Amino acid sequence: MTVSSFIPPKRTLMGPGPSDVPERVLQALSRPTIGHLDPEFIRLMDETKFLLQQAFHTKNQLTIPVSAPGSAGMETCFANLLEPGDKAIVCQNGVFGMRMRENVERMGANAIMVEDEWGTAVDVEKVEQALKANPDAKLLAFVHAETSTGVESDVKALCALAHQYDCLSLVDAVTSVGGIALKVDEWGVDAVYTGTQKCLSSTPGISPVSFSDAAVEVIKNRHTKVQSWFLDLNLVMGYWGEGAKRAYHHTAPINPLYGLHEALLSLHEEGNENAWQRHRHHHNGLKAGLEAMGLEFAVQESIRLPQLNAVSIPDGIDDAQVRGRLLNDYSLELGAGLGKFAGNLWRIGLMGASACEENVSLCVTALDEVLSDMGAAIEKGAGPAAVLKHYA
Amino acid sequence: MTVSSFIPPKRTLMGPGPSDVPERVLQALSRPTIGHLDPEFIRLMDETKFLLQQAFHTKNQLTIPVSAPGSAGMETCFANLLEPGDKAIVCQNGVFGMRMRENVERMGANAIMVEDEWGTAVDVEKVEQALKANPDAKLLAFVHAETSTGVESDVKALCALAHQYDCLSLVDAVTSVGGIALKVDEWGVDAVYTGTQKCLSSTPGISPVSFSDAAVEVIKNRHTKVQSWFLDLNLVMGYWGEGAKRAYHHTAPINPLYGLHEALLSLHEEGNENAWQRHRHHHNGLKAGLEAMGLEFAVQESIRLPQLNAVSIPDGIDDAQVRGRLLNDYSLELGAGLGKFAGNLWRIGLMGASACEENVSLCVTALDEVLSDMGAAIEKGAGPAAVLKHYA
Repeated sequence: MTVSSFIPPKRTLMGPGPSDVPERVLQALSRPTIGHLDPEFIRLMDETKFLLQQAFHTKNQLTIPVSAPGSAGMETCFANLLEPGDKAIVCQNGVFGMRMRENVERMGANAIMVEDEWGTAVDVEKVEQALKANPDAKLLAFVHAETSTGVESDVKALCALAHQYDCLSLVDAVTSVGGIALKVDEWGVDAVYTGTQKCLSSTPGISPVSFSDAAVEVIKNRHTKVQSWFLDLNLVMGYWGEGAKRAYHHTAPINPLYGLHEALLSLHEEGNENAWQRHRHHHNGLKAGLEAMGLEFAVQESIRLPQLNAVSIPDGIDDAQVRGRLLNDYSLELGAGLGKFAGNLWRIGLMGASACEENVSLCVTALDEVLSDMGAAIEKGAGPAAVLKHYA
Repeated sequence: MTVSSFIPPKRTLMGPGPSDVPERVLQALSRPTIGHLDPEFIRLMDETKFLLQQAFHTKNQLTIPVSAPGSAGMETCFANLLEPGDKAIVCQNGVFGMRMRENVERMGANAIMVEDEWGTAVDVEKVEQALKANPDAKLLAFVHAETSTGVESDVKALCALAHQYDCLSLVDAVTSVGGIALKVDEWGVDAVYTGTQKCLSSTPGISPVSFSDAAVEVIKNRHTKVQSWFLDLNLVMGYWGEGAKRAYHHTAPINPLYGLHEALLSLHEEGNENAWQRHRHHHNGLKAGLEAMGLEFAVQESIRLPQLNAVSIPDGIDDAQVRGRLLNDYSLELGAGLGKFAGNLWRIGLMGASACEENVSLCVTALDEVLSDMGAAIEKGAGPAAVLKHYA
């Protein structure tokens, strides 16, 4: 095999993540590497914690980036909060609820499942029944923004219920932070994890997490050791703790943390509320274009995520063929359906820096051209016109 | 807190890692992010596997970068090879053998410890006794290059013993790959993990691993699920597998993998044997300088790592003060002693791109000046003179 330097193509990323990474974040990545115990790196850690607190709307002391992707952030939460024999109520309305179940069971804990149809939100009433029926449950876990279906569930209501029944709340916010409202302290979230490559528009590979004081107490007072040494927060806290007395645990991913710091700074400069509004605004532009073209959303409007749009594929149109042409002719990436939605829908991401007029316009124009060419029953030209009107 | 873009200082990194990251690797990091299912990214994955096989001297199909730091690479090996109740023989001659024990025990398996003094190599005879006494042991685990002490152990002899007693061999090669000889296939290594931020001179955060066919059989035929979903190779194999049928598992750290690819390419261009010789050559330069100055190595010559030099701190000299001055006045990072060696020795890394004349010269000159200033009993000027002579 002959190998040379890898020069990636320039894509427009409108799938379920990674999203477009702004030049300022890419530039931050390539700054000189320093040691993970360097005083300057410790300053970076402190600033990153502060910026993460702002992004999560929390004052939680234990707010840190886990040195691995979102799936490891999920595992960090379950592995630290659960012990063998514990009971957790897990809501499943897409791929990531299933993954939560896998996590719970691999901890030797019991998962009580509350299942809802893919494409619908977590049913608050069913959750209350499960909480009533399981007074010994230790935590309630659910996904805020289900990346596999484009559905938002009601964090505020679910966390309130969890506390009413003396449970901790654990929220998957991988696709929500930075894109839609999430107020960790105000809404009573006890444990939360997110990803860097969605609405934060940094590169994938790091998972910010945050834990309430109540959750930290549970972690500090475990009867058994956390089954993962790498993810054991009792050890990680010593590394990401306050002041100069940091205990070596593992070597942090220095340069990716430069990138995350820059991406969080960008969000901080814009302001969370402004970022949420921006996602909504461009979602409306995309919606105008797609609907004018005759395409339909797969999720009802009241629970639709602005940043992750599940759009039904018109009858007779081949999913892979369309996405292949978009990639080859427009260098545009859309997401495929996952699991039972494979082949039936596209997932169109408007996350972070990808939530902009240029991307909406490219996406609608490209779909208009490709679908027309392939003989789909769409109204040719109407989509791009509606987009122009939205932004006029 | 007021936060602005983080501009790190330019350091010379001569601690236990990260090592200096060359400009070509930093530039690769900042190339445009693409999707983790993009055909171009799949090409990057295939090339990275090929380059890793070269670095490990192996044809093992299961040779991949784990999407997390070296500690997660260690955990990947133990979590996939061990099941609850299994027995593992673990050699401990420094910090990382202790960490191995933690891993084994957190899997619900039993660790039979073979302990050697810090600063000495793993004793092959003691290992044979342990293998004889534990015919039911499933694997033998040890550290090739102990980063906490600067000691090399004999991979070839230990792997041969493991096989003689029907055990799998598991080798921590975090600090060895790229710096000293490691021949995975020829020496019979069944499982091995390394780090990117040592002799490969990429940025920290990824851990390349490789598994022999025998190890893969063990993983495929487990009776219980791997306790970590994130690190379960039965799932990860589907993502890093051959050809176009990749199953989504987690989102790979795209840009850090650009950097690793470039770093591995650089090693491939140089050639492994040349890289090992380069590390030896600059180690000899450093040795000449330090010994001329009157400083002593803490490890006997036959088992000394060229890439990680444990050097005794002269009597009456304050460790932190010296390292502080080196950092502030020379922007030079040396490593502190770990565990029982804290305050007694420095760990001077000559890893990857840090193994060069410029770094050796800076280190010896800076130590010469700082130690003289502090009144240490060294021969002023002799160190830099010896370095000049070595490179003449």
